[in-house]
Amino acid sequence: MSELRRDPIIERWVIVDTDNPTKPEDFEKEEIVYRTGDCPFCYGNEATTPHEVEVIRDPATHPNKPGWQVRVVPNKFPALQIEGEIERRGVGLYDMSNGIGAHEIIIQTPYHHKEIPDLEDYEVENVIAMYCRRMNDLHKDTRFKYILLFKNYGPSAGASLEHPHTQLIALPMIPKNVQEELDGAYKYFEYRERCIFCDIIRQELQEKERIIFESKYFIAFCPFISKFPFEVWIIPKKHQEAYCMMNQEQIQELAKMLKNTLQRIKDVLYNPAYNFIVHTSPINVEHREGYHWHIEIMPKLTRVAGFEWGTGFYVVPTPPEVAAKYLKQS
Amino acid sequence: MSELRRDPIIERWVIVDTDNPTKPEDFEKEEIVYRTGDCPFCYGNEATTPHEVEVIRDPATHPNKPGWQVRVVPNKFPALQIEGEIERRGVGLYDMSNGIGAHEIIIQTPYHHKEIPDLEDYEVENVIAMYCRRMNDLHKDTRFKYILLFKNYGPSAGASLEHPHTQLIALPMIPKNVQEELDGAYKYFEYRERCIFCDIIRQELQEKERIIFESKYFIAFCPFISKFPFEVWIIPKKHQEAYCMMNQEQIQELAKMLKNTLQRIKDVLYNPAYNFIVHTSPINVEHREGYHWHIEIMPKLTRVAGFEWGTGFYVVPTPPEVAAKYLKQS
Repeated sequence: MSELRRDPIIERWVIVDTDNPTKPEDFEKEEIVYRTGDCPFCYGNEATTPHEVEVIRDPATHPNKPGWQVRVVPNKFPALQIEGEIERRGVGLYDMSNGIGAHEIIIQTPYHHKEIPDLEDYEVENVIAMYCRRMNDLHKDTRFKYILLFKNYGPSAGASLEHPHTQLIALPMIPKNVQEELDGAYKYFEYRERCIFCDIIRQELQEKERIIFESKYFIAFCPFISKFPFEVWIIPKKHQEAYCMMNQEQIQELAKMLKNTLQRIKDVLYNPAYNFIVHTSPINVEHREGYHWHIEIMPKLTRVAGFEWGTGFYVVPTPPEVAAKYLKQS
Repeated sequence: MSELRRDPIIERWVIVDTDNPTKPEDFEKEEIVYRTGDCPFCYGNEATTPHEVEVIRDPATHPNKPGWQVRVVPNKFPALQIEGEIERRGVGLYDMSNGIGAHEIIIQTPYHHKEIPDLEDYEVENVIAMYCRRMNDLHKDTRFKYILLFKNYGPSAGASLEHPHTQLIALPMIPKNVQEELDGAYKYFEYRERCIFCDIIRQELQEKERIIFESKYFIAFCPFISKFPFEVWIIPKKHQEAYCMMNQEQIQELAKMLKNTLQRIKDVLYNPAYNFIVHTSPINVEHREGYHWHIEIMPKLTRVAGFEWGTGFYVVPTPPEVAAKYLKQS
């Protein structure tokens, strides 16, 4: 029989198939093909992107030329545009606003075929640190209230370009899904004077069965209230509100952990498409206590259908306890 | 430049690309293949499904044998199970419940290849009426608070069986997404003493550009606040709280309208995968005023990626004004 589990943060139910868990080999496979040919993110094609806004490169080389390791450029086809003031207006019933925001691409490496697991540790560190640098820089623009950092890997996760990259979008409002998570965490903190994520970490470390691995600063685990099969969270063990509050040692450790986790997901699940999203605190708003940043990695193994769209419930064919066992053994 | 629009019901923003709308031919096409071979929903294979719970059939024929037009059976692999009492309990931080609910399949026709647009009007009427009958029947079970009726068409919309069918899930709680929509509508009603959906209809009829067609009782339109490109809503023009409140004449008209709308979507968008979801009032809970039932049809033309998962914002590459123009001309 299936089991309903309730997310204590955003009050969503998930339906977990505990009787008949789907195994890694039972999911439909997606072949992720790397085409050769012109890629705007490859070495030598720097002129085909907008000018770089930040870069890690050999000091002897020139901007927008080869010689870089991590390169950040504005998205050529941005969902939102950086120039202008926010203008909200009503149209009858509705509210409208112009599309102000930043939309940047963090090109993780010059190598078209090297995703995070294929990079050296120090190269992943550079990527992780660049995420911080861009967030810190955009934080200064007080129009922005939230910075979303996310990665789409593979076509079914929504990636349109193969070359390893991460996206960053700075928004003039706190988006709905983020606000819900924040509200849940703040409410819990007000009521209990404890961080709900710290409590989750405590319970997960005590029950052990969903932990994939633990390091000095972080744990990687399949949360009890996973929305997707083989969902993995990486979270700092000690309370920390925002991604950018990591010190150098934490950045180094997170790089190893992210690389290792993505490698396991690749091995166990036959190189699936995935999204990862950095969940962090909002910026340029009144500070409230109770949020704890983390990364949510969601392999795309199933398709969201009418039931999920209609209810906001998620059906999880592999319980996180089973998923963690596979990922641990890998 | 893109435009942000705010959904006044659930307070979600959508980002609409008004500058450079994606045309129907520009979306990635999905070929929807009908395999031949054993299908549990076809004539003659009635023994391979659980026993029918309701049916429209020739009175001279026997239950669970050929001779039917619309047949309803429990899902062989239900997400939830009908037997038992709801038992909620805590596990540390978390809440759990056993998975109580009904999960039924409405087999729309004995013909493996005849979707709604391919049926005769009276056949679609039978399907629409059967939705009502099942909802009314399950309403009597006071454990249930909400009945979700939805259709997945095509693999990328989550359909695992090709044979034309609709699904119904009765739930012991009001799901999160539904509650949000209800709360938004109730709040508006309390504040203005008017139904927000009635106000939307009024505004859409006045502005005209998003209306696909209008009949005596219904309109089909691409809402200003579409979450997906070419999203279509069918809504009764006069305030009506629940799907099952339709009279015979409305059922007849809805059948024509649904058939016609799905035909246009098929023609204009190269037979895309889609979901449709009936949004209706909850059952067996205290009555509140301000909700207005409708059907939301969502062609699957794009993939939900990290940005949408992370924010709850949706990026709509074809503005509803442009979508309606295509669907109107078809």
